[in-house]
Amino acid sequence: MTWVTLVNVSPFLGLVGLVTALLIFLYLKSQPNGPECTQNLEEMVHDGAMTFLKKEYSILVFFIAAVFVLIFCFIDKQTSFAFLAGAACSIVAGYIGMTAATRANSRTAIAAMEKGQKEALKISYFGGAIMGLSVASIGLIGVGILYYLFGGDPETAKYINGFAMGASSIALFARMGGGIYTKAADVGADLVGKVEAGIPEDDPRNPGTIADNVGDNVGDIAGMGADIFESYVGSVIATIAIAATMVPEAMPDGASKAAYMAMPLLVIMAGLVASFFGIFSIKVMGNMKPQLFLRYSTFIAAAVLIILSYLICNGLGLPIGIFWAIVSGLVVGIFIGLVAEYYTSGPPVKKIAKNSETGPATVMISGLAIGMESCALPVLGICIATFVAYKVAGVYGIGISAVGMLSTVGATMTVDAYGPVVDNAGGFAEMCELGPETRKITDGLDALGNTTAAIGKGFAIGSAALTALALFTAYTQAADISSIDLTNPMVIIGAFIGAVVPFLVAALTMTAVGKSAFAMVEEIRRQFREIPGLLEGKPRVKPGPEKCVAIATTSALKQMILPGLLGVMTPVVVGLLLGKEALGGTLLGCTLTGVMMALFMSNAGGAWDNAKKYIEEGNLGGKGSENHKAAVVGDTVGDPFKDTSGPTMNILIKLVAVVSLVIAPVLMSLTPIVDKIFK
Amino acid sequence: MTWVTLVNVSPFLGLVGLVTALLIFLYLKSQPNGPECTQNLEEMVHDGAMTFLKKEYSILVFFIAAVFVLIFCFIDKQTSFAFLAGAACSIVAGYIGMTAATRANSRTAIAAMEKGQKEALKISYFGGAIMGLSVASIGLIGVGILYYLFGGDPETAKYINGFAMGASSIALFARMGGGIYTKAADVGADLVGKVEAGIPEDDPRNPGTIADNVGDNVGDIAGMGADIFESYVGSVIATIAIAATMVPEAMPDGASKAAYMAMPLLVIMAGLVASFFGIFSIKVMGNMKPQLFLRYSTFIAAAVLIILSYLICNGLGLPIGIFWAIVSGLVVGIFIGLVAEYYTSGPPVKKIAKNSETGPATVMISGLAIGMESCALPVLGICIATFVAYKVAGVYGIGISAVGMLSTVGATMTVDAYGPVVDNAGGFAEMCELGPETRKITDGLDALGNTTAAIGKGFAIGSAALTALALFTAYTQAADISSIDLTNPMVIIGAFIGAVVPFLVAALTMTAVGKSAFAMVEEIRRQFREIPGLLEGKPRVKPGPEKCVAIATTSALKQMILPGLLGVMTPVVVGLLLGKEALGGTLLGCTLTGVMMALFMSNAGGAWDNAKKYIEEGNLGGKGSENHKAAVVGDTVGDPFKDTSGPTMNILIKLVAVVSLVIAPVLMSLTPIVDKIFK
Repeated sequence: MTWVTLVNVSPFLGLVGLVTALLIFLYLKSQPNGPECTQNLEEMVHDGAMTFLKKEYSILVFFIAAVFVLIFCFIDKQTSFAFLAGAACSIVAGYIGMTAATRANSRTAIAAMEKGQKEALKISYFGGAIMGLSVASIGLIGVGILYYLFGGDPETAKYINGFAMGASSIALFARMGGGIYTKAADVGADLVGKVEAGIPEDDPRNPGTIADNVGDNVGDIAGMGADIFESYVGSVIATIAIAATMVPEAMPDGASKAAYMAMPLLVIMAGLVASFFGIFSIKVMGNMKPQLFLRYSTFIAAAVLIILSYLICNGLGLPIGIFWAIVSGLVVGIFIGLVAEYYTSGPPVKKIAKNSETGPATVMISGLAIGMESCALPVLGICIATFVAYKVAGVYGIGISAVGMLSTVGATMTVDAYGPVVDNAGGFAEMCELGPETRKITDGLDALGNTTAAIGKGFAIGSAALTALALFTAYTQAADISSIDLTNPMVIIGAFIGAVVPFLVAALTMTAVGKSAFAMVEEIRRQFREIPGLLEGKPRVKPGPEKCVAIATTSALKQMILPGLLGVMTPVVVGLLLGKEALGGTLLGCTLTGVMMALFMSNAGGAWDNAKKYIEEGNLGGKGSENHKAAVVGDTVGDPFKDTSGPTMNILIKLVAVVSLVIAPVLMSLTPIVDKIFK
Repeated sequence: MTWVTLVNVSPFLGLVGLVTALLIFLYLKSQPNGPECTQNLEEMVHDGAMTFLKKEYSILVFFIAAVFVLIFCFIDKQTSFAFLAGAACSIVAGYIGMTAATRANSRTAIAAMEKGQKEALKISYFGGAIMGLSVASIGLIGVGILYYLFGGDPETAKYINGFAMGASSIALFARMGGGIYTKAADVGADLVGKVEAGIPEDDPRNPGTIADNVGDNVGDIAGMGADIFESYVGSVIATIAIAATMVPEAMPDGASKAAYMAMPLLVIMAGLVASFFGIFSIKVMGNMKPQLFLRYSTFIAAAVLIILSYLICNGLGLPIGIFWAIVSGLVVGIFIGLVAEYYTSGPPVKKIAKNSETGPATVMISGLAIGMESCALPVLGICIATFVAYKVAGVYGIGISAVGMLSTVGATMTVDAYGPVVDNAGGFAEMCELGPETRKITDGLDALGNTTAAIGKGFAIGSAALTALALFTAYTQAADISSIDLTNPMVIIGAFIGAVVPFLVAALTMTAVGKSAFAMVEEIRRQFREIPGLLEGKPRVKPGPEKCVAIATTSALKQMILPGLLGVMTPVVVGLLLGKEALGGTLLGCTLTGVMMALFMSNAGGAWDNAKKYIEEGNLGGKGSENHKAAVVGDTVGDPFKDTSGPTMNILIKLVAVVSLVIAPVLMSLTPIVDKIFK
């Protein structure tokens, strides 16, 4: 077997990953999930999350069917089936991850109570690992099979693009629907519970608490899983597409086109292997401080990947520049993550907290300013990564550096997904009164989860930018565009249209959170009013959390449709109306403002969140002080910023690019509508 | 005299405009400025504003000298002197406008008290007209003389670009310095006065009140004057530059290059004449409702301009498409203004106000969402204007449509500048106790001023976008760039760098307001603490407002340096480091995010402001209610949004473009530094 034919192993390696995830799941299920109380909560959260997913998918099925028919009729049938496969794989990955996470929550809480921090870390980490491995494995299986079918011939490789579009479409809706739901439930439960009724967070009397816990799962597990899944397959497919249209002059050292095309798949295969090392390092490093372990597990995966990439690059006979492009992507990814960590838990957070002394307005101003400022270094990082990758390996380098960043997704996603599991476990500990020691352990692990989430978000934005650029390059080649010239005003008009889309989507999603939260508030108020004895905490009087879950679900899903369609339709409308060059401008405009808004909103939101926590730790007057109240305002604004609108941007820029890539063959020789009218 | 040689009259027409402004000023000065109290206040505000200007210019003189030397040594001596002239003209225009406005304030207050609304409107309107006419006339004189010297030969026309760069540089610093000052003084005076000491706004005991009044003048008069001045000359010079490099094929119907080059100057000459009609329509329409009069005076100027443009276009033998480009610019300018009016005083304002019922966080979220949403229609308008202008008259059309929008600046700027005059007059009426009737008149005119200011801001953003695009086109031609190809990653890197600059400048200016406001707060607190009897209002105990003015001045000017240098240096660094194509990307990136941020910040700020006012009118609980407090938080955040950071964006995008245009001859045949290193 040669290095190039090694790609045929990819679906089987993916299967190995899936089986591993299954084994971890069986181990997890065998752990005790405690007394009736935690078992009941687990069931309720699990049911709520599954109800959400089912409802979401039952809406998306119409969308998927419609797009399938359109692609089938106007593009080709292979692409339409690839689209279907991409959508299905994304859904399956989300479903598996959600199942695992909603089973790990109670077990983490019990482990924290019965066995302490180390065991709680292990359970929650494994809960996340199932998600991480599923995303990586299913992606590998899907892309691997399609590559086997179509990848042999550069002509048919374009069909694989449909897979990325399927994954992207589901990701956008899942991210938005989940993001709206989680924040609406959070804000709604807090507003009536903490502010109006004066009962603590996660109090069992509050009918919104379950919805809040469900929200952590649908937003941070299913939503993020779909997000990362699409980045992962998007970067691989973009790089394959770039390789498929490479001309001999761009391939020095006599390396074959097949080698260039196989490279991204081999890198993610290596990435999955590297992730095994990262994840199972818990066996030897489980006694470390949790913070160090989480960090080292990621580093181990990155180190293994670097070694394997070097071997692959050599084995395929590709120039060494490609290896350096991968390294530069990884280094810049970590750099962007560290910058995000600085802005969301370093000195800027204390500055915001200090500003609470002059009230909520100065908390807002300083947070917004810090969010805007935080764009500078990551953008510089993206520029440097793009520059290095391009200089050492041409436009192909940009694609492969994104693949490098995302290939260890099995390990990085594990760390991301562990956060919501411990967050849920903490809620369970509170509601079932598992004692202050248990709560302390889950709180400690949760705080850690927030920091790793901030780093993960930075990483996600960096990889999204590079993936979008790679997709952009793939689009220009697929549409047979020789140049997208900025001196052509039609390109500038396209760029303006693209630039405004992220602002509009951000506005719509933020408004959606407000509307859905209001629906929750009304329902919680109604229950407190109409269920006698509930607020007073009479024994055996229970709230009706299912109603809250149902209302938040319906409202969130209704609100996700408009911004979702905006993302999907923009490239189609611009392409048909103004032509393929103008659409190139749209892609760039959307990527530029999308990346800025993602950084701005994620970092501002994270900084506000931690400024509030910093005060709650007893600084500047502590919980309940006027300063705390001011900081809570910042946190409330930050919630939709960092968990709804901000993360949506990542997917938006990739979706717009991938839709363009798929419709490129149609646009290639089409006369734009405006030219028909004005000629 | 032919139509083409008519341009030689332009400096003389400018002189006529200036003399008219002088006559209005003499009439204004002859009006009564009331009792000792208002006279004293007038002196203090006048002195404070002049002190600010002198300090500002004494800092800028170093900057001007340094840039002069650099241009002299590295570009050419003609451009360096044109730069000097542009800076000087901007300074003179600001100085004249400031003198007029600070003399009109007390006279408006007295007119309101003694003669009623009609006379108060007239005085304040004339106060603004002096500024409007000065800006238009000085621009006409400056560009006219340079055109006489260099415009005859397309080869030497490039020297005129220096004039635009001089005007732009001063504008950026004036807008930022003034914007930081005005909001620091406003926030500082309110925070200690209204919130801490519990005394009303504009109370004579508050030592910050004078600084607040000074701020209205340095921000809204001098800052805005410099802003509009540079848009005005920028659009004309960009269009001349585009015409200078036009090739015969781009000139149908045998029209001469001289005609294309003369056109923009003739249009602003027509604009000045049209402005006379607009301004002096007060003679016949002075009895109308103020709101209608202000609107009609602008429409009259626009109508006269359209007629004259048609005649000029015909007279020069230019294709009629150019006339339509001017019309499309005007129509879209008015459209963008109306959209701004909708978002800052229509239903969205009530939505924000309604959100105050659930506290400051929801006020913030809804305001931010509305600001983001408000980008969509104006951007669509900019796209349509660009499209129409391009289709009917090529890239030249984009430039001339911006000229059309800005040519009636004499009339539009009058309406803009009248706002701060009545705002000041209202403060004087309060401090000197001129009675509730007087205050009612000034408040009524002030509210009107806020609406017209919102429309003016929309107009300013639209024209800035078109001017930036025109300057961009001029740059590509001056640097002899055949295409700025987005498929070249270096261009994309440039675009990312350009896109992040507005975010960074916004962050810096917002932080600057906070820092300067804090310096003010400290000083006001000190005075309340150390001057016995001040807070109690003992007779003959007076605060020391000069100290507040001095502190706010020093702080604001210190804070403007960094963001100002960032704007000036970015194109130079990118051009030298990454090359002229990458710089083209930077211009586009900066324009895209700059326009979005300008719309987002200006409209969100305006909407928050009016939501607060809506509640103060007695809705939703009225002044002093919890809802009002929540709305005040929005307003406080909105202040730096709409008066500091937002307006700075307009200038920033033009400055970056005009600096690029000036250094284009140097970049033309230069090897970028990175290419030297990596080759």
